Amino acid sequence: MYTDENYMHRCLALARLGAGNVAPNPMVGAVLVYKDTIIGEGYHQQFGQAHAEVNCLNSVSEENRHLIEHSTLYVSLEPCAHYGKTPPCSSLIIAHRIPRVVVGCRDPFKEVDGKGIQQLTQAGIAVSTGILEKECMALNKRFFTFYTQKRPFIILKWAQTADGFIAVDDDTRLLISNDFTNRMVHQWRSEEQAILVGTNTAMKDNPSLTNRLFNGNNPIRLVIDLWLKLPAQLHIFDQNATTILFNYSIQKREGNMCYQQLEKDKAIPAQILAYCYKHNIQSILIEGGAVTLQHFIDAGYWNEARIITNQKLQIKKGLSAPVLSNATPLQQQDIAGDTINYLIHNSHQF
Amino acid sequence: MYTDENYMHRCLALARLGAGNVAPNPMVGAVLVYKDTIIGEGYHQQFGQAHAEVNCLNSVSEENRHLIEHSTLYVSLEPCAHYGKTPPCSSLIIAHRIPRVVVGCRDPFKEVDGKGIQQLTQAGIAVSTGILEKECMALNKRFFTFYTQKRPFIILKWAQTADGFIAVDDDTRLLISNDFTNRMVHQWRSEEQAILVGTNTAMKDNPSLTNRLFNGNNPIRLVIDLWLKLPAQLHIFDQNATTILFNYSIQKREGNMCYQQLEKDKAIPAQILAYCYKHNIQSILIEGGAVTLQHFIDAGYWNEARIITNQKLQIKKGLSAPVLSNATPLQQQDIAGDTINYLIHNSHQF
Repeated sequence: MYTDENYMHRCLALARLGAGNVAPNPMVGAVLVYKDTIIGEGYHQQFGQAHAEVNCLNSVSEENRHLIEHSTLYVSLEPCAHYGKTPPCSSLIIAHRIPRVVVGCRDPFKEVDGKGIQQLTQAGIAVSTGILEKECMALNKRFFTFYTQKRPFIILKWAQTADGFIAVDDDTRLLISNDFTNRMVHQWRSEEQAILVGTNTAMKDNPSLTNRLFNGNNPIRLVIDLWLKLPAQLHIFDQNATTILFNYSIQKREGNMCYQQLEKDKAIPAQILAYCYKHNIQSILIEGGAVTLQHFIDAGYWNEARIITNQKLQIKKGLSAPVLSNATPLQQQDIAGDTINYLIHNSHQF
Repeated sequence: MYTDENYMHRCLALARLGAGNVAPNPMVGAVLVYKDTIIGEGYHQQFGQAHAEVNCLNSVSEENRHLIEHSTLYVSLEPCAHYGKTPPCSSLIIAHRIPRVVVGCRDPFKEVDGKGIQQLTQAGIAVSTGILEKECMALNKRFFTFYTQKRPFIILKWAQTADGFIAVDDDTRLLISNDFTNRMVHQWRSEEQAILVGTNTAMKDNPSLTNRLFNGNNPIRLVIDLWLKLPAQLHIFDQNATTILFNYSIQKREGNMCYQQLEKDKAIPAQILAYCYKHNIQSILIEGGAVTLQHFIDAGYWNEARIITNQKLQIKKGLSAPVLSNATPLQQQDIAGDTINYLIHNSHQF
């Protein structure tokens, strides 16, 4: 009577209930169906605790437990096949003799990555995959980008004047975005694991790069300072949040300050992203400046862009905004004279 | 540079961060602005704890505290003027010598109801009111309906066949809505303080009226059983949630069961609503049956209606769905063959 897609939509709705509580794990939902009737539901509620499949099976009432071995399990992400913080869900499903499993998308995490599906199939379970695959992947875009591309999910952000400049020519700081969009930017900071700026921005704007104007976490501060030119009194050295300083000469750690040495003969963006991958940083907000942003754009290392334009401010000359390529506009928002344009990279797979 | 409306929109955004944690209090947000710059922000975060104005003033940094007496305070709801769980905000504002206050809407709660604004004005503070008034009231539609109309906010809900019937003629139960919309209905139950059904529905469907298919609270069960015809084995008598049984003969309480006597010569809906007002029940979901729903519709006692239509099911004869009047369609949603129509009462003031 209902389609696999109907039940997978329900899995997605359940998965979203875990938002904010499961990162860096993915959000996952599961539904158990006996003859067109849902007899169990569950989702991953808290990092380190039970997976969606476990909660789903536990939710089945005593009177319906004998139906489990005649039911179909829907789950938005491939069941895990390894011992992590919990035992493998594939074993649990096999032990419950569930005859059919419908999987939204494959888990790219290397300890799973098809092994969950393989174990189920080998146990004689009928497995269908790829139901609402794009939606299931998009739900966990940071997680999927991290494991499939072996780099963090990257969001570019800058503020520009109506005539396309992001800064004046001299050393003074130009305030472009308004109080309202500034607060939105702080919310964005709370949503990503790290924030990246180049040397000029750190010097000229002396940003704290912390989330002070919104409830939530401070991101890790990633700062490029190849030749160690940045003076010690800048906010990024204040130890109020972890700072990783990418440079050519030093490798050391002092409290929350970590100096990370890069190799001179290799591209900088690739080395920074490799560092993030190694240290499990799943997402970055790049806040400037123009040079840093352009490096990442030219290398194709970005997923989303959020461009704030002050519609009233014109400065005629200054530092030009970066030039985006391979970008598709998604949405536009107006807040008290600032326009925010949201774009995604054309190759975005979800 | 920015308008009062700009800052009031920010108040509303802040207020919404309290959703789910402040009921039955209203959600409220506040912003303190010195010369086009936000120097403080706050919202009511938790029932019984600090009001938005207090959190806003506390958020001002040490270096900016001397600016408070030159700033404008924006708040989405009139500051309170009484000692409740916290001291009056009007006194706090006066003590801080804030010269201007912009209020989204007046607080209809009788201990405030204009007294907050009056105290500020008498202290020589310039007060502007009614900025984004409709939005500020709509944000707390249950709260405003409760205090202005002295009755709960009422949501009507029923499920009907494609040909407009809500039940068959005999005593058997007809399942109309699907597994997916049933789960949405349980979410609706978790969002309101009480749920109401008539005698026939309680008898024929034997509903539990609890929220089992969604995380959240159980509503209070309100059941009309004027002549005490309902047999004791029905789910509504199971003590799993509070039940108020409106009847003509008994007034007593047994654990979670409360028998509430009504007067025979007065209209039933009005008496039930008066009971709710007296007992601080701010919202009701009325789930049927047709007779009960029609009584409330005819008396004009409703704010929203949510009608689920199974697009495939036709039964040709049976019990007809209620007839709505003074209704404006708002939105339509399709879920696996069920269509949900959302409507509001024409006189809805927000």
